[in-house]
Amino acid sequence: MSVKFAVLGHGVVGSGVVELFYKNKENIEKRAGTEMDVKYILDLRDFPDSPYKEKFTKDFNDILNDDEVTAVAECMGGVEPAFTFVRSCLEKGKSVSTSNKELVAEKGDILLEIAKKNCCNFFFEASVGGAIPIIRPLHKCLAANDISAVAGILNGTTNFILTKMYNENMPFDEALALAQRLGYAEKDPTADIEGHDACRKICIISSLVFGKHVYPKSVYTKGISQIALDDVKTADSMGFAIKLIASVRKQESGKILPAVMPMLVPYDNIMSNVSDVFNAALVSGDGIDKVMLYGRGAGKLPTASAVLGDVIDSAKHKVNVFSQSWESADDQSFVDSIESFTAKWYIRDAEGSRISEKMSFADAQKLDAQACIPVLE
Amino acid sequence: MSVKFAVLGHGVVGSGVVELFYKNKENIEKRAGTEMDVKYILDLRDFPDSPYKEKFTKDFNDILNDDEVTAVAECMGGVEPAFTFVRSCLEKGKSVSTSNKELVAEKGDILLEIAKKNCCNFFFEASVGGAIPIIRPLHKCLAANDISAVAGILNGTTNFILTKMYNENMPFDEALALAQRLGYAEKDPTADIEGHDACRKICIISSLVFGKHVYPKSVYTKGISQIALDDVKTADSMGFAIKLIASVRKQESGKILPAVMPMLVPYDNIMSNVSDVFNAALVSGDGIDKVMLYGRGAGKLPTASAVLGDVIDSAKHKVNVFSQSWESADDQSFVDSIESFTAKWYIRDAEGSRISEKMSFADAQKLDAQACIPVLE
Repeated sequence: MSVKFAVLGHGVVGSGVVELFYKNKENIEKRAGTEMDVKYILDLRDFPDSPYKEKFTKDFNDILNDDEVTAVAECMGGVEPAFTFVRSCLEKGKSVSTSNKELVAEKGDILLEIAKKNCCNFFFEASVGGAIPIIRPLHKCLAANDISAVAGILNGTTNFILTKMYNENMPFDEALALAQRLGYAEKDPTADIEGHDACRKICIISSLVFGKHVYPKSVYTKGISQIALDDVKTADSMGFAIKLIASVRKQESGKILPAVMPMLVPYDNIMSNVSDVFNAALVSGDGIDKVMLYGRGAGKLPTASAVLGDVIDSAKHKVNVFSQSWESADDQSFVDSIESFTAKWYIRDAEGSRISEKMSFADAQKLDAQACIPVLE
Repeated sequence: MSVKFAVLGHGVVGSGVVELFYKNKENIEKRAGTEMDVKYILDLRDFPDSPYKEKFTKDFNDILNDDEVTAVAECMGGVEPAFTFVRSCLEKGKSVSTSNKELVAEKGDILLEIAKKNCCNFFFEASVGGAIPIIRPLHKCLAANDISAVAGILNGTTNFILTKMYNENMPFDEALALAQRLGYAEKDPTADIEGHDACRKICIISSLVFGKHVYPKSVYTKGISQIALDDVKTADSMGFAIKLIASVRKQESGKILPAVMPMLVPYDNIMSNVSDVFNAALVSGDGIDKVMLYGRGAGKLPTASAVLGDVIDSAKHKVNVFSQSWESADDQSFVDSIESFTAKWYIRDAEGSRISEKMSFADAQKLDAQACIPVLE
């Protein structure tokens, strides 16, 4: 029996999925324990020079109505039409693997529920941290733990910019322009530098770890556009690297507190060594103490590697494995307010720069400071 | 339906499995999608003060012949009687999760084959890297990759000693004595400091990644007992940390070359920042580029976390999932000789210390050098 799958979207990630699959087809089939092949590639554009041109279709129904297609890789991005397509596939019992963080952050609960009802898988390893194994380790390897916190460097663009500021004394604007020239930042870099991309990823992690859907709108999100080169240098002299940290912690109240903001990472925390476009997630739990997962958080082949890993898992598990799920949560009151976030703070004001005692976000905001950045514990 | 499992051995790891399970039972059952309980604990010793004393048995047959027991956690260590017990369980269709690296390194191929035949799982996440998700990520998340190399810091004792030599200028003997006082090293520290422990772990990784059983006897293994404090300092001034690296790489010939030896790790490689008793594995593949997995490689709860993660996975998958396997290999000629290992080398001889051009292990051994340590690429 051969497993046939379809790839939705032939952009950077989708074309990477096809490329990596055919490069390693023999080994992939050995690991899957079954023959596999791409049957369709969905894209509205024409690719007359593609070696796989006979697989292209512009009509999603070709895929949906072909019972031979049992797995689908969704690499289109954006909520629609991805949501409609993915839902339709799952309703027909076709397992879906996606790299689409917007889709999972907005609709993950609904899609997981539909997958469960229809005995197929909705996998999304590629939606957080590109090539880095995060979702499956969190859900499987660390399943025996009471997880108290996850802190991640989940956006490569901002980490590249901060690394340039740090290593080469490059001002923010110049580092951003360089990132754009190198293709690490988009023409409109807002989603990256203002933290919205990292926010979607910490929503997915929070939902998975704590079992209820966390929406991006519930998460305090601050980017790096206000980080001054002087603060990067001063923090360095104090023994810290400034990183954009997407984190979630369990509060004493039982609520959870996800947030995205620049933080000072002490040099004895290995996260301070995560540089350039690399990403990492540091997980704290009562069994493991601390585990860190590190690698390339974006890019054609790294993201394709994660999508294909999920497709291979779907090919192996013809029976639904109820692999992961979380509850819907219209009521987001289990998400704590940023006001109650506590930390030590790096403070720069008229008196100079220093690290404060522990205080709440609310209190820190009342200070008359030019810079006020929390320290990662 | 409730899943009942047995724990073989009530030493450090086995008692950790029971402790962590009951601490997080409610969440574990939610994640497993089923009720779970420990039905037996096997140990020849008496534990009259244990809160679970009614679960103890000294007779393995109580477990083997109880059809209600569908999963077993093997935490005894050593090849026998662990091998006989594990084989008997698998032959009865009971899934086994083990923390026993000796067992997997010596008998993994046989046990995986028996598990496959009997439609149950033989899991061993805990046998390499303690709490760190390594086996499942390698096998599942990275399954789409052509993996070219894995390099790991897989022994906490030696990493602790090297960190003390590095950070505190402590001579080897003194650092070893401190590790023994802190319980990080055994009274007879040979297995750790001479590299045998790391060797077993790289055998398991090599077998899993390249699909054929690699035996410890096929792997060149050199420990850290001959590392001089002066070389640690000189390497530092040149921009390197000395680490005990257990690695495997695919050679151009198609053979694989596993080895355990001290190596110089450049400071721009994040592995150089893995300190104290922490472990890490850096995986190189054509899709991912590089992924690193980091955490506590030993200890009661970290190792228990990995064992339990596997038990939970077994509880979820009542149908065999053919999760991982490799071929037996009486003929080890696919393992290349260390003579053909090539690297740049740190060389200290009458002329001083320097980093050489690339040369083979065979050529490096011919030099009249007091120290000769390869550099990790």
